[in-house]
Amino acid sequence: MSLLADMLATVFDRRAARITTRAYDGRPLEEMAEALIETSSETQVHGLASAILTRFSSLSDEQKLGFFRHLSTGMDIDPAAVRIALNAYEATPSKATYRAFMAAAEPRRQEFVRRLNQVPNATAALVQMRADLLRLGRNDATLAALDLDFRHLFASWFNRGFLVLRPISWESPAHILEKVIAYEAVHEIQSWDDLRRRLEPADRRCFAFFHPSMPDEPLIFVEVALTKGRASSIQSLLSESRVPITANDADTAVFYSISNCQPGLAQISFGSSLIKQVATDLAAELDGLKTFVTLSPIPGFRKWSEQTGTPWQIDHAETMRRLAAHYLVNAKREDGLPYDPVARFHLGNGAVISDIYAMADNSEKGLSQSGGVMVSYFYDLAKATTNQENYIAKRQVKTTPAVKTLAAAAAAAEKNKTKEEPAQV
Amino acid sequence: MSLLADMLATVFDRRAARITTRAYDGRPLEEMAEALIETSSETQVHGLASAILTRFSSLSDEQKLGFFRHLSTGMDIDPAAVRIALNAYEATPSKATYRAFMAAAEPRRQEFVRRLNQVPNATAALVQMRADLLRLGRNDATLAALDLDFRHLFASWFNRGFLVLRPISWESPAHILEKVIAYEAVHEIQSWDDLRRRLEPADRRCFAFFHPSMPDEPLIFVEVALTKGRASSIQSLLSESRVPITANDADTAVFYSISNCQPGLAQISFGSSLIKQVATDLAAELDGLKTFVTLSPIPGFRKWSEQTGTPWQIDHAETMRRLAAHYLVNAKREDGLPYDPVARFHLGNGAVISDIYAMADNSEKGLSQSGGVMVSYFYDLAKATTNQENYIAKRQVKTTPAVKTLAAAAAAAEKNKTKEEPAQV
Amino acid sequence: MSLLADMLATVFDRRAARITTRAYDGRPLEEMAEALIETSSETQVHGLASAILTRFSSLSDEQKLGFFRHLSTGMDIDPAAVRIALNAYEATPSKATYRAFMAAAEPRRQEFVRRLNQVPNATAALVQMRADLLRLGRNDATLAALDLDFRHLFASWFNRGFLVLRPISWESPAHILEKVIAYEAVHEIQSWDDLRRRLEPADRRCFAFFHPSMPDEPLIFVEVALTKGRASSIQSLLSESRVPITANDADTAVFYSISNCQPGLAQISFGSSLIKQVATDLAAELDGLKTFVTLSPIPGFRKWSEQTGTPWQIDHAETMRRLAAHYLVNAKREDGLPYDPVARFHLGNGAVISDIYAMADNSEKGLSQSGGVMVSYFYDLAKATTNQENYIAKRQVKTTPAVKTLAAAAAAAEKNKTKEEPAQV
Amino acid sequence: MSLLADMLATVFDRRAARITTRAYDGRPLEEMAEALIETSSETQVHGLASAILTRFSSLSDEQKLGFFRHLSTGMDIDPAAVRIALNAYEATPSKATYRAFMAAAEPRRQEFVRRLNQVPNATAALVQMRADLLRLGRNDATLAALDLDFRHLFASWFNRGFLVLRPISWESPAHILEKVIAYEAVHEIQSWDDLRRRLEPADRRCFAFFHPSMPDEPLIFVEVALTKGRASSIQSLLSESRVPITANDADTAVFYSISNCQPGLAQISFGSSLIKQVATDLAAELDGLKTFVTLSPIPGFRKWSEQTGTPWQIDHAETMRRLAAHYLVNAKREDGLPYDPVARFHLGNGAVISDIYAMADNSEKGLSQSGGVMVSYFYDLAKATTNQENYIAKRQVKTTPAVKTLAAAAAAAEKNKTKEEPAQV
Repeated sequence: MSLLADMLATVFDRRAARITTRAYDGRPLEEMAEALIETSSETQVHGLASAILTRFSSLSDEQKLGFFRHLSTGMDIDPAAVRIALNAYEATPSKATYRAFMAAAEPRRQEFVRRLNQVPNATAALVQMRADLLRLGRNDATLAALDLDFRHLFASWFNRGFLVLRPISWESPAHILEKVIAYEAVHEIQSWDDLRRRLEPADRRCFAFFHPSMPDEPLIFVEVALTKGRASSIQSLLSESRVPITANDADTAVFYSISNCQPGLAQISFGSSLIKQVATDLAAELDGLKTFVTLSPIPGFRKWSEQTGTPWQIDHAETMRRLAAHYLVNAKREDGLPYDPVARFHLGNGAVISDIYAMADNSEKGLSQSGGVMVSYFYDLAKATTNQENYIAKRQVKTTPAVKTLAAAAAAAEKNKTKEEPAQV
Repeated sequence: MSLLADMLATVFDRRAARITTRAYDGRPLEEMAEALIETSSETQVHGLASAILTRFSSLSDEQKLGFFRHLSTGMDIDPAAVRIALNAYEATPSKATYRAFMAAAEPRRQEFVRRLNQVPNATAALVQMRADLLRLGRNDATLAALDLDFRHLFASWFNRGFLVLRPISWESPAHILEKVIAYEAVHEIQSWDDLRRRLEPADRRCFAFFHPSMPDEPLIFVEVALTKGRASSIQSLLSESRVPITANDADTAVFYSISNCQPGLAQISFGSSLIKQVATDLAAELDGLKTFVTLSPIPGFRKWSEQTGTPWQIDHAETMRRLAAHYLVNAKREDGLPYDPVARFHLGNGAVISDIYAMADNSEKGLSQSGGVMVSYFYDLAKATTNQENYIAKRQVKTTPAVKTLAAAAAAAEKNKTKEEPAQV
Repeated sequence: MSLLADMLATVFDRRAARITTRAYDGRPLEEMAEALIETSSETQVHGLASAILTRFSSLSDEQKLGFFRHLSTGMDIDPAAVRIALNAYEATPSKATYRAFMAAAEPRRQEFVRRLNQVPNATAALVQMRADLLRLGRNDATLAALDLDFRHLFASWFNRGFLVLRPISWESPAHILEKVIAYEAVHEIQSWDDLRRRLEPADRRCFAFFHPSMPDEPLIFVEVALTKGRASSIQSLLSESRVPITANDADTAVFYSISNCQPGLAQISFGSSLIKQVATDLAAELDGLKTFVTLSPIPGFRKWSEQTGTPWQIDHAETMRRLAAHYLVNAKREDGLPYDPVARFHLGNGAVISDIYAMADNSEKGLSQSGGVMVSYFYDLAKATTNQENYIAKRQVKTTPAVKTLAAAAAAAEKNKTKEEPAQV
Repeated sequence: MSLLADMLATVFDRRAARITTRAYDGRPLEEMAEALIETSSETQVHGLASAILTRFSSLSDEQKLGFFRHLSTGMDIDPAAVRIALNAYEATPSKATYRAFMAAAEPRRQEFVRRLNQVPNATAALVQMRADLLRLGRNDATLAALDLDFRHLFASWFNRGFLVLRPISWESPAHILEKVIAYEAVHEIQSWDDLRRRLEPADRRCFAFFHPSMPDEPLIFVEVALTKGRASSIQSLLSESRVPITANDADTAVFYSISNCQPGLAQISFGSSLIKQVATDLAAELDGLKTFVTLSPIPGFRKWSEQTGTPWQIDHAETMRRLAAHYLVNAKREDGLPYDPVARFHLGNGAVISDIYAMADNSEKGLSQSGGVMVSYFYDLAKATTNQENYIAKRQVKTTPAVKTLAAAAAAAEKNKTKEEPAQV
């Protein structure tokens, strides 16, 4: 199939390229973009879209930025036109007036992006284009609207209903696995042997979301360890010398790493769906699984300690656990949500802060960002919705009693300290 | 796979259903729709979307119409809010003001539909929902805007880049084939034996577009006969007693039937892409194929004859051919485009009116709509773009010299007739 | 894939054919067969095997019979050579002497058949060849040895370990389904609609064994109904108006039809494996399934009645049940095994005669062969081995007490009758 | 699928194991083997075969050897019984006498192995069993017959017609790729990156034969480089810094490595089929490919040099080429076939010795075994059969004129040397 597909693709691309080349070779990209929006010939759409995507990918960063600016300003909405169309629709609601309003209220760059997407493999190219935009336009307020348009379209195209959950295993294609190695963002995969240790044993699982138009690109993946009892450190989970158990003997699924793969899909959220779908599927497959927890990093812990002048005592496990619990439960942003981004993610999914483990990640990164402390979030699917609602509506951070006790101890200590050493502030 | 998938789906659906049932059972659909748009809990989205789709599918036509009216009026844009947001964006273009404008300028029912789409199998249900809307709202101007919203979203979701071309053969699954039997709109398929005659021989092909989220539902399909020389009648192509040739011996591909399968995707155009992709693929597979033509019906011929008082002479083949050529070339709508819908489709794709065949479809339907006359459109991929541009820009109807001669003869005859028999008008 | 595969196959076949054609065109098939055994060139093997299979398929029945006779006599073992090789091996067991003995003791036609099998698609052609042999050589004792050779090779090639169990559903390819229609031997499938009723509902299943070298040809298939309680008639199982249940609600799986598909694989037994594998799989999939039974015909009942002068009373259900029980339990062949072939099959698998149903198959065929009576065999996987051993070793026919009572009643009645009417014999 | 398959397999295995365990646990393997041959219960066959394979795999080498000896002697043919059956068949050829002869002439261990093969995954276990036999029984003449029986059965089961050719690419499953790394026997694969360089570029291909019952185990694979002109060294082919070409630009396919993967399938020949099938497929896919050659090692060159006292002059390329040509063309075994095993393989396939390259493999292994010299065999599919016949019948070694000249120069030099320095011998 693949050979035949390649052959055909080649033929097709060649013809399409020829058609465009004739007419647009050498013209500025901006002109081609205009032509793409204006043409009513489907063949033209195809040829132009191909040519634009190819041309864009070979631009320098500066040229890309220039083109993004053109899309932002040259293809923005025209307020006057929107007003006229709006008035007309308000006066006489009809198919014609509504259609005119829709056309005026949507910037032309949205149609531009939709038309680019008609070429095979365009979706991946467009995701890459937004990655460029985010990278290059980070500090450029004039590009924010363009990014919102991308985001609007991507949210529609990467709708949960279009995504496909696929297991990643040692039997998966190598070109997918090398992406897992590259994209793992939490606990780095050192080598193919390291990867195999995370995929091949009977008590290890990995799942990813894919989009049918980007079948070779995982969007997000989660690594799961099936354990007897809860895991209290990442080094024991990833140890080369551990003895695997059978999947049927496991009572707990530990989600120990979740990685987003596509910078161009930033702010398009898949993680919550992924965890819940995987938990549901594992529960259906393995009768013995009763508990679903994470073993998660605490990425904001150091920064908060430094900012608040709360010094760590790394060699004192209990103190570290208390401090971390306190940080997770009580450190808040201005909007009242937790300071820690990973905590926001899991609490926002309806999970509960369940356990705090000291010396649970003694990698350099783990020690550096959280003094080796890790946290376990507990997913109770039956209560997730209620937790989620309370979290969103009331900023309620749900914990187990044990964690509450830890946090309270730290808060009390801090208070005392504050009283005793007022000069420090 | 299918068994496991079913199992998991069942578990999942059961849990999701339980979550919703508890909270929304018995509430009006409109209230659930509001809740779906408002919630920021992903689990809620899932549960509500499932429940709404299930509930909707069991409504009576009258209830559906009522719900559509709610979406139209209760979830329309608010012109005042749009104006405020527009002014703010115009005054201070920024991420915040643009986001606010986008939100105001898009009716909430679009987000409603997008959220419904997050449930597995929702896409097919939404296509069915629009089919209901088109059927029930045909004469209801207030529903036109709602339909435009559906169309806007579907155009984005059913973007050419997301569609998959798949061959349909006698080795295809029976549940797909029964849909081909059901949806064939041009030359009815009488039975499974009739279907087999169109799929199994080495000189017959069929291709369909599918969407990954509706893998069991062809969107549009085309039936192709591989022939030596061009076919001049549909009855010879479909004859039970014909002797197949090998595909390698064929020099011509005849597209003899194109059928849209989904009423809910009306006005989302796939046909042009389908023909070009199939032609490209067949050309790549079979070196001997040099000519790509259709054998097409002339559905508007009778109506035009009756309206213009141009009587047929069915037993006079040459006269019929001339009349049909004249009709196709010269009968125009107010906008200057051809009167015949099939002609508009193929000419709009850049094809050429190539041949006119008398007694080419002697089925009851064929005799009734066009006196048995059929037309062949010729696709020259190299020239399609130019033809298309001339057709769109200049309303140019391109024909072969032979067809031009036929049309001219009929036009002359008519003129003479008009001169001779002025009393008739 | 299929297109590419076809292409390549064509190229390959063409070259291979060319190679052979040059050298062997026109020579007698017998000479080509000799050459095939003698050559040590793999390319030659390929070319000759292709040519022989093609040539054979176009022979008349008489010519085929002639060729079979050649294989029987011209390629038989040479007793003198066997004796010499045997003596040598006995005197000096060694690699060389054993190899020589193996070669002498195996008729050359076995190697001939193995070499034919090297061509793509040869396996199906060889199965067809044996079907021809069985059809044409039925009364020809000289061909029996040849058939034993085929059987020996096929038993090795169609070893249970090489077979693949695949579900057949309404989503299966049409070219497989039409074979299911054609091969159904127990309860004829009238139409595609009838087929759909046996495949599509949630409480219907069908499974078949396939061999990887004949992926388009089911070898044997079984149709299963999932029911609540046991089914007591075939007409209720196949009724057009019945209401399906969900698979999860079923407590019983009824195997109501088992059909062998390949006459050329006669005496190569798959049925026992199929039933046990399907029962095991269904038990694993559906927790609720507790009972596995058949609803089986009694094909030898009429013949036995006529031969033994035991007249039926079709309108008297209880009498029919008793007679049938008596027949199944007590009517034996010379070797002590049951007279009824279906009974031999299921008892040989370790099943138990469980129930007798009157008016359970009121089709013409059912009434004709067994007066409408059917029998249910019960599979208890845990006891199957013991039953099987007792059946084989002691000719023990295991039944439920109810069936034993029925049979005893009939036997008693017959005895009385015999006593009362001695003159009848 | 895999999950479900695993689940079912587990259930099945558990039941089968239970059945056997009850009866045979603790009994000697020999007794279980007897029972396996004797039983007529299919369930018993299944249970026993599973148990025997499991038990065997955990034996020590000494125990395995003991079991092999039992199969050799305890399950050999009984000459007296063969004689009786042979006499009976000779006297009265019939189905019964032939069947009795077949049974007597085949050692019972063949049926033993066939019955073992009925369990899922047994085929791979049996291949491993023969690998053990070859390893342990190398010098044990009494085991030779047993090995011939394995070989006889494997030749039938691994018949070319049952094998499946599959491309191996960077998109292949990792668990297959790691076997390619492990089994590569000619030019060692150093790492996953090295593997990628041989699979991913557009001008690299790899193909393997698989057996449907061992889908995770390649049997043999070949690595191919698509080149413009012929490659003259392995280091240029495998260079990290080379620039790939497109497949369409290649005119030559270089088969640079062929590796058998299964020691247990020794002497079952696949290589010839593999090369020809791959050449045929590549020719069909890529119109530009005109030449099919190997770049092959000369593994026997050093040994021959040492044995014949023909010293190398590694820094003198031309001398090395002449010597190698002379060796390949003129060095013969007692049976008249070439001394070099790789030469025998390719000449036996009908290839031609085409070119000799000096410093073509400067790896340690290459320098050691052939002083860095490599040879290219040329495959002309049209002439392969004739070459093969001449090679087999007349021991004819076909070369290009250039190679003939090289060999003649070396032979002449050697003669002269022999004349001039008679004292050396």
